Amino acid sequence: MVNELGYVAGTVTVASFLPQVVRAWRTRQTRDLSLASLALLITAGSMWILYGALSRDWPVVATNSGMVGLLVLLAAAKVKHG
Amino acid sequence: MVNELGYVAGTVTVASFLPQVVRAWRTRQTRDLSLASLALLITAGSMWILYGALSRDWPVVATNSGMVGLLVLLAAAKVKHG
Repeated sequence: MVNELGYVAGTVTVASFLPQVVRAWRTRQTRDLSLASLALLITAGSMWILYGALSRDWPVVATNSGMVGLLVLLAAAKVKHG
Repeated sequence: MVNELGYVAGTVTVASFLPQVVRAWRTRQTRDLSLASLALLITAGSMWILYGALSRDWPVVATNSGMVGLLVLLAAAKVKHG
């Protein structure tokens, strides 16, 4: 039950980055995004993957893997469009 | 040790939102931010607080509490500046 809540929370977390990624790539406008924030979030997400693996918390591992993937796409849009 | 990693990862996570919040409030430009993303992230963060509390994972509770606080500030900037 708690595990299920973790997976639902994780799905919402990863899904929540989708509108931002779509917006950035569709409008090609990323001026208002902070690259420092994106870089730090990618670092943090990677640490959470390690934390989740070490504490065998798979919802945390799955969520942060999805998040890091989308954040890399967002950072790429920022680097490309400035 | 694993717990410490969680707190370090959590601190980086919360810190990572700071440059974005500062940018949004200082430039008063939030056009490139997705309100849908912010709303979903606030929902997801709240679910993670519940998940962390139920599984007694305090780094997860602390991180998501800080994150939801900063996301509310960011969403407020978006609503105000559009």
